[in-house]
Amino acid sequence: MTDFGGVLDLKIAYVNATFFTLDKDNLIFENGMMITEDNSISYIGQQLSELIDVEQIVDLKGKWVLPGLVNTHSHILMTLLRGKGDDMLLKPWLETKIWPLEQQYTTEIASVSAQLGILEMLKTGTTTFSDMFNPNGIDSDEIMESILSTGIRGAFSHTIFSMGSQIEQKRNLVEAERFAKKYKRVADGRLTTMVSPHSPYACRTEALLESLRIAKENELMVHTHVSETENEVYEIEKRYGVRPVEYLRSLGIFNQPTIMAHGVVLNDEEREILKHYDVRVAHNPISNLKLGSGIADIVSLLDSGIKVGIATDSVASNNNLDMFEEMRVAALLQKGMYKDATKLPAEKTLALATRIGAEAIGMGNTGSLEVGKKADFITIYPYDKEHLQPISAAYSHLLYAAHGNDICDVYIDGKNIVKDRVCLTIDEEKVIAEANRLQGKLVC
Amino acid sequence: MTDFGGVLDLKIAYVNATFFTLDKDNLIFENGMMITEDNSISYIGQQLSELIDVEQIVDLKGKWVLPGLVNTHSHILMTLLRGKGDDMLLKPWLETKIWPLEQQYTTEIASVSAQLGILEMLKTGTTTFSDMFNPNGIDSDEIMESILSTGIRGAFSHTIFSMGSQIEQKRNLVEAERFAKKYKRVADGRLTTMVSPHSPYACRTEALLESLRIAKENELMVHTHVSETENEVYEIEKRYGVRPVEYLRSLGIFNQPTIMAHGVVLNDEEREILKHYDVRVAHNPISNLKLGSGIADIVSLLDSGIKVGIATDSVASNNNLDMFEEMRVAALLQKGMYKDATKLPAEKTLALATRIGAEAIGMGNTGSLEVGKKADFITIYPYDKEHLQPISAAYSHLLYAAHGNDICDVYIDGKNIVKDRVCLTIDEEKVIAEANRLQGKLVC
Ligand SMILES: [Zn+2]
Ligand SMILES: [Zn+2]
Repeated sequence: MTDFGGVLDLKIAYVNATFFTLDKDNLIFENGMMITEDNSISYIGQQLSELIDVEQIVDLKGKWVLPGLVNTHSHILMTLLRGKGDDMLLKPWLETKIWPLEQQYTTEIASVSAQLGILEMLKTGTTTFSDMFNPNGIDSDEIMESILSTGIRGAFSHTIFSMGSQIEQKRNLVEAERFAKKYKRVADGRLTTMVSPHSPYACRTEALLESLRIAKENELMVHTHVSETENEVYEIEKRYGVRPVEYLRSLGIFNQPTIMAHGVVLNDEEREILKHYDVRVAHNPISNLKLGSGIADIVSLLDSGIKVGIATDSVASNNNLDMFEEMRVAALLQKGMYKDATKLPAEKTLALATRIGAEAIGMGNTGSLEVGKKADFITIYPYDKEHLQPISAAYSHLLYAAHGNDICDVYIDGKNIVKDRVCLTIDEEKVIAEANRLQGKLVC
Repeated sequence: MTDFGGVLDLKIAYVNATFFTLDKDNLIFENGMMITEDNSISYIGQQLSELIDVEQIVDLKGKWVLPGLVNTHSHILMTLLRGKGDDMLLKPWLETKIWPLEQQYTTEIASVSAQLGILEMLKTGTTTFSDMFNPNGIDSDEIMESILSTGIRGAFSHTIFSMGSQIEQKRNLVEAERFAKKYKRVADGRLTTMVSPHSPYACRTEALLESLRIAKENELMVHTHVSETENEVYEIEKRYGVRPVEYLRSLGIFNQPTIMAHGVVLNDEEREILKHYDVRVAHNPISNLKLGSGIADIVSLLDSGIKVGIATDSVASNNNLDMFEEMRVAALLQKGMYKDATKLPAEKTLALATRIGAEAIGMGNTGSLEVGKKADFITIYPYDKEHLQPISAAYSHLLYAAHGNDICDVYIDGKNIVKDRVCLTIDEEKVIAEANRLQGKLVC
């Protein structure tokens, strides 16, 4: 296995930059300094007049530095499906587009999808992601290997669902358990996996209980889709007599740390359950709009004390992986829905897309620029960008005006992964060429 | 006056590109050709094997070409206010931020704001805009001159409002009339103006009637803000006993071609009035969310047969001028609001931001790639952009994945205004430096 994740022993000082720590106090250090050591941040603050033992000084030339963004729910293996079905109702979209296309998947298609998706994530400032993949027809070890080589941080999780014959369902569970055991902790903890029953509607009760057992035995989080649409809530109520949240709670799922994607259709009682069990929510505002699911009430989730992360879902329902757009839409929707411009202000939304999102997926070792945290950070050179002028009020500019492709450099685990908009770990030209060659093999 | 808008007599063929005409049939010509002559399109279609009298051939190297985008409602003089107040309720936002800052305006601040705003518009693919400016404290002739020199197409309109003393209100009207007369038609029709009473709430009845007279006498459109918030509707009902649309109708405003910004709070009866008088709506989805106004029902407006354009409003409530984002959010919101993914599909939304938007502001001579229309077009080189891979389903990519800064070249009236992301008509470095110097003079 390529060990891209080895330990860097260098002590490096990053100087001449404005650091947006996105810590709990939203500290900003203008003309500040950050020192990294052994992949972690060992100093952040005002520029020191004396540097001891620093082996390298990086002049950031006035750039803005912020923690890498955290995408709490994605499906990177679907990247080759971008634009393959839009403006369609969920059922025909799944039945005539997404599922038939996924049936045609090979390891090669999956691998190029993963590389293209991660390339887009990295170049738009995402350093940590939590993904759920459809394992059908692919060699998941090979995919994990290729993800590892990109240098990204995150969790890549094998989906469990109750489809096909009994034998196929059994194989799906066996394979999910093998994957969970093997990838609990890879590359010094930079990569991990979660146990991912797809959803209460796509998993039988036994599959959910098996998921819980695997998660417990391997001390892994559960990552699932819950309460995405009104129809789902209706279906689960019809099947089990209770709504999805109560159904999952009654099975004991929430006794294990859990993150649920969506949570569009929730009531007060359900929010109380989520708070009580510390269940986290991955909010996918663009996907929820694009598929006609609706708008999740994030203000109420936050008021209830629930941890919320921001997420893109797949490019099939987005159609890009730009977390800047995603955070902006998240903030705008709450203001519009509540008819109150003060809801979900800039700093809070940025925190959801970084520190709080990282905590939500159990990776509190990243997501803010603080001593002891991993050296995962991104830079923007604002001075030549008309949409970031005049330069000031930077939290506002970051949330309401910036784009993913404003990102200049990306560092993960202290390593320079994107330099001046060029990804150093992925052969960009090759991945794009392969993506275009392979899309010819996907027909619907 | 700088006559940047002179007539080009060259016959130019643009070859080796995919042309998205955005005409009524949404024709696309892969490996197509466009010929321009005297600032207009004289041929669009398949690549011809023989070219007669063509003086220049431009190889577009496989780029995508689409009509320039049309921003139907902006306030470019506010560009220096970007980020100066966010996450605030409308009243304190206006009273403690926007109005006090606007009081400090000088011609220099206004001129740099205009240049910066237009620079951002051009570089993100907007070739036509319709703007409303606050004339207080500035020399509007100088500003118009500086807009002219950028090469952009559009309408720049002097706001009429009933603020200050009687004398100030009179002066405002006199100056608005002078401006309307002088700038009815500039640079061979590339620039014009409209008569812009701010809104039914900020104008007394007499000011609205005077606006109507000036518009009639000069054969100009009326551009105003209507039904932006529930509170506005409530206020007008209290003042005049009828809702804003009926109030304006009863004054005869709608006998003159009119575009109203917002239209967030409308009922069926009002939509019938708007349809009957062919009143057009400039939809500002991001601004409406950001200020907590709500979501305009665009599906119902379109179903009623009303022309709708897309618009950014000012950067103070957006905070950028990227029409790609604006169209995307427009489409997503209708799907989310209706819980129906088929609402406002990609091609339709692109048409609103181009051809239909152009018609809505009375500039049907631009907005699509058709013979006889002005040669206003923009290009994208998709092949090295990860978020546009795999390359296919281009309407979908354009609406759901592209960004303003994917734009490579911009042509207006057949002239190359932006070339490979460099604006040829504005000194980018100087404008950015000035914007940062002048923001120090704006204190609140
Ligand atoms: Zn998902
Ligand atoms: Zn406005």
